[in-house]
Order: sequence, then structure tokens, then C-alpha cells
Amino acid sequence: MSDDVRYPDWIAVDWGTSNLRVWAMTAEGEMLAHNGSDAGMSTLEPADFEVTLLAHIAPWLPAGRTTPVIACGMVGSRQGWAEAPYRAVPCPPSGVLIDVPCKDARITMHILPGLKQEKSADVMRGEETQIAGFLAREPRYDGIVCLPGTHTKWAQISAGEVVSFQTFMTGEMFDLLSHASVLRHSLGEGKALDEASFADAVSDTMSRPEAVATQLFKIRAADLLFGASEAVCRGRLSGLLLGLELAAARPYWLGQPVCLVGAPSLNTLYAKALVIQGLEAPQYDADEMTLWGLSAAYKESFS
Amino acid sequence: MSDDVRYPDWIAVDWGTSNLRVWAMTAEGEMLAHNGSDAGMSTLEPADFEVTLLAHIAPWLPAGRTTPVIACGMVGSRQGWAEAPYRAVPCPPSGVLIDVPCKDARITMHILPGLKQEKSADVMRGEETQIAGFLAREPRYDGIVCLPGTHTKWAQISAGEVVSFQTFMTGEMFDLLSHASVLRHSLGEGKALDEASFADAVSDTMSRPEAVATQLFKIRAADLLFGASEAVCRGRLSGLLLGLELAAARPYWLGQPVCLVGAPSLNTLYAKALVIQGLEAPQYDADEMTLWGLSAAYKESFS
Repeated sequence: MSDDVRYPDWIAVDWGTSNLRVWAMTAEGEMLAHNGSDAGMSTLEPADFEVTLLAHIAPWLPAGRTTPVIACGMVGSRQGWAEAPYRAVPCPPSGVLIDVPCKDARITMHILPGLKQEKSADVMRGEETQIAGFLAREPRYDGIVCLPGTHTKWAQISAGEVVSFQTFMTGEMFDLLSHASVLRHSLGEGKALDEASFADAVSDTMSRPEAVATQLFKIRAADLLFGASEAVCRGRLSGLLLGLELAAARPYWLGQPVCLVGAPSLNTLYAKALVIQGLEAPQYDADEMTLWGLSAAYKESFS
Repeated sequence: MSDDVRYPDWIAVDWGTSNLRVWAMTAEGEMLAHNGSDAGMSTLEPADFEVTLLAHIAPWLPAGRTTPVIACGMVGSRQGWAEAPYRAVPCPPSGVLIDVPCKDARITMHILPGLKQEKSADVMRGEETQIAGFLAREPRYDGIVCLPGTHTKWAQISAGEVVSFQTFMTGEMFDLLSHASVLRHSLGEGKALDEASFADAVSDTMSRPEAVATQLFKIRAADLLFGASEAVCRGRLSGLLLGLELAAARPYWLGQPVCLVGAPSLNTLYAKALVIQGLEAPQYDADEMTLWGLSAAYKESFS
């Protein structure tokens, strides 16, 4: 490589169940390059992790120097590269890095642990780093952070600590019902979502949560009998499930400030449902917050 | 074939989405033989149906005589052999047979139509024949028939008619969550179900239906943190979903006689959940009721 190639001071890694993302970072927090693939934790055996990581970051590693790698996510689970034991809430979102032995001398590997809640059992891996990043951006925030995703988390934040949290499988339920259940015939493969149907469905399960059990099949029945469009069916399914989540998460959002930290499209969907409840929720991009969180961990331990 | 082979007077067929079952029947209702396979409606193109049926019943068909075949289930849907248009409730469960043209002169083909409910959209195909069979057995029954299955139906029966009904995707949700979601890691592949966990979970969602949204992930979290057994996790998932169904179906069963018409294992599960609500529900085997229902249709049209 030519002399003017700038090598990163450290490497940020978000390694989840189904994806791996890596960023080449300077000590000052500038991103020099990024890379990613679907080499998620669930596809790998323990022996594969180091090789897989190196395949994604090798061009960024100069000879004769050690570059620290800081990772968050399911890579730190029991089935991951190395277990980073959960820390119990209440606690700050970011904890001490777990050092993982590597064969390649060009890197040192460090994993951020997840959080656990023993009373009202719950766990998170990865979202704690998004919360840490959010608090790096909004250090005085006191209130609720909602992190929409496959497994949405609602976390209560106070005095820089995660006080409590709850997980909702809404995203996974939507994926299963829309792609693998009888409803797939009515939803099709598109993404479009009818907003009025979504809003009505949110209200339906907010006011009568148990109705979700019978309203789900009615999506199919209404299509068979009256020919509802795919966007209407999709809006209805999404709204029913999100309304159920909001009904259960009510103690989290009622009368509280709420910030959303997720992918932009999911943030928008949640914001729409919350506006119906009279709540304006500022939106933060989850990837950005992950990078802020990993950067905060780097600064704390290496600079 | 030897002279003492007794050929059936007619053939009963239950042809669902994923299974085909056929019975060789006498005019008096005696079953001479039966057969079945996984050649369900969803695996077949319209042109395949007659060939597939003949492959299952050919040895029962004498030359030079026409044997009527009476079928119920998804075979009568738009994607089936021939559409048997839904009949609107309130109406008796069994309607006029739809004649379907056949190429083979040894059979005539007749399909029982399903039921539809336009207000509070809902549909059924196959269960109406089980209800007809149940009413052939219990002609004076007035009350609720619950038909547990992949898509459980609750039907209100009065004066020999189906007055209204509701469908619950509880069985399909259980299958998807236990085999395709993150919960599969905690439930494993077994069938065992812890009864105390089941009963507690039924009560949890009966008293607070919206809690199902957060209780589902706690099955996984409790396993990760405290090592719950697969039977406990399975009991909990089954109970949470069935409790939600019972909460929504309350107008159907509260203060009403309820009879269960399903596979014996599912009947037992529903009976256990209903006993917790102080309700004793007699159990009827769904296959038997299907055969009673098809027999009633045969008698009405052919004898």
C-alpha cells in the first residue's frame, strides 16, 4: 500500500445474530471506511469468528502494530465468539470490556457485555451500546428510550443508568406472520403499508388488547370476502401488533419523554403510533448510536 | 379381485391444506377401509386433484358402477379443485353439495361448501362439516362448539344453525413461535408441557391480555438467566397464547355450555384451560365428527 494510506486507530464492530458490520475509525472518531456482510453470529462456529473478522478488516491492519477491535452484540453471547457475562440493571449502559484472546498479533479483541434484569427476567446484547451512544449524545437525558427492532426494547433511563427494560417480539412476530402464516397470501411480498388501516389497528388493540387474537385471522377473512389490498392488510397486521406492544408498554411511555433509537423506517412507524397517543418522540439512527457507543468505549479504555 | 370383496357405497374425503384422508363407507355408515397422505390442497395444481384422489381410492372402485365421493375442507376453496362458494351464517352447518365434473366415469365428485360471516369477517372450510357431524350426534345442542386446531374456531349453535363464529390463529402462532422464532432455542423439539407453567400462563394473559407482548420474550430470558426446562418454556408459551384466546373468546364461553371438537391432545389442552375458568367441556374427536358430518350429507343426498 502507498504511504498516504491512513490506517485506523481502532476498529468498531457490530456483530449481531444475522449481520456483521465493521468500521475503520480514527482516535478522534472519524470513520475512514466501513464493510459488512451477513456473516452473523448464528452462522458461525466459535473457531470461525477470528477468521471471519479478519476477512472483513485485513486491508485496514498495518504490519508491526496492534489495532484494538471493539465489538458489541450477540458476538458476546454463550453461542458467540466468547461469552461476555451480562451486567445487572440498574447500571450504566456501558461496562468494562471483555478481552478475548486472538491468534493474529495485528489485533486485540474486546467485547462489550450485555445487560440483564433478574426481576421480570429480560436480557439485551447490542442495544446497551446504542443506549450508551445515545447518552453520549444526550448526557442529561432522563426518560424512556425505545429501540425498535426484531426484538424491540423499552428502557427507562435515569441519572446515566438503565433502570429497567422490557423486550417485545413485535418485529419477529410481524416477520413470521407476514411471511410464514396463512396471512402471507393476503400481504404479499411488498413493503407498502396503508396508514389509515395501521392507525385504526393500533387503536383497536390499544383499547382491547385481547382482540388481537381474533383480529389477526380477520385480515385474511376480509381479504377473501371483500378483497382488501396488500397494503391495507399489511397496515392492519403491523398496527395490531404495535398496538398490543404499546398497550403493554404503557407504564413506560405514559407521561414520560420518549426517544426512538432504531432504523429510520422503524422509527417512523413507531413515531406514527405514538403520535396517535399524543406523544412526540424524537428519532435517532441506531447505527449512528452504535458507533457513538463503541467510540465512547474506545475513549474510556484506550485514549 | 375375489367375489367376496365388498365395495363401498360411497367414499368420504377430508381434504385440507396439508393432508388428504379418505374412507370407504357403506350406505349404513360402516367404514370398510381408510387411507391418507400429505397430498394436501396446498401441494396441488387444479389439474392434479382427480389423479391424486384416484391414486388413493382406486382399489375401492368396481368397474361398471359409479361411486359417489363426498369431500369437505380446503379442496373447495378458490385454490382447490373447484370453488364451493361460502354460505353465509346464520345457517345450518351443512349445505347443498357442489357437483364437480370428473373425467373418470367410476366416480362422481361432490364438495361441501364452507361458511362465511360478513359482519365481523370470518370464514371456515371443513369445520362446518365437523359441526354438522356433532349436531348429528347431539341434535338438540344449544351452546358453543369450540374446534381447536391450527386455526381454532368458536361457533355459537342454536336451533340447528351456526349463528356466529370466530377464528383464532393460536395453533399456527404456537407452531411459528416454537419452531421459527428465538424461542425455539428454549423449547427444543419435544412435546412435553409443564402443566403448572401452562396454568399460570393461562391466568396471566386472561387477567392482563396485553402482557402477552412482553411475556413471550421472558420465556427466552428466564431460560438464559435461570435455565428453565423445555417443558416449562413450552407450557408457558402454550398457556400465554391460549389465555389470550380465552380472553378474546370470553363472550363465547362465559355462562354458556361448551363442547370441544378437535384432536384428542388439543381437546385435552383446551379442557384444562377451561377447567381453570370453572367450565367442564365434553370432548368429541374431530375425525369422528367429520365422518358423521360427511355421512349425514351422503344420507341427505343419496339414500
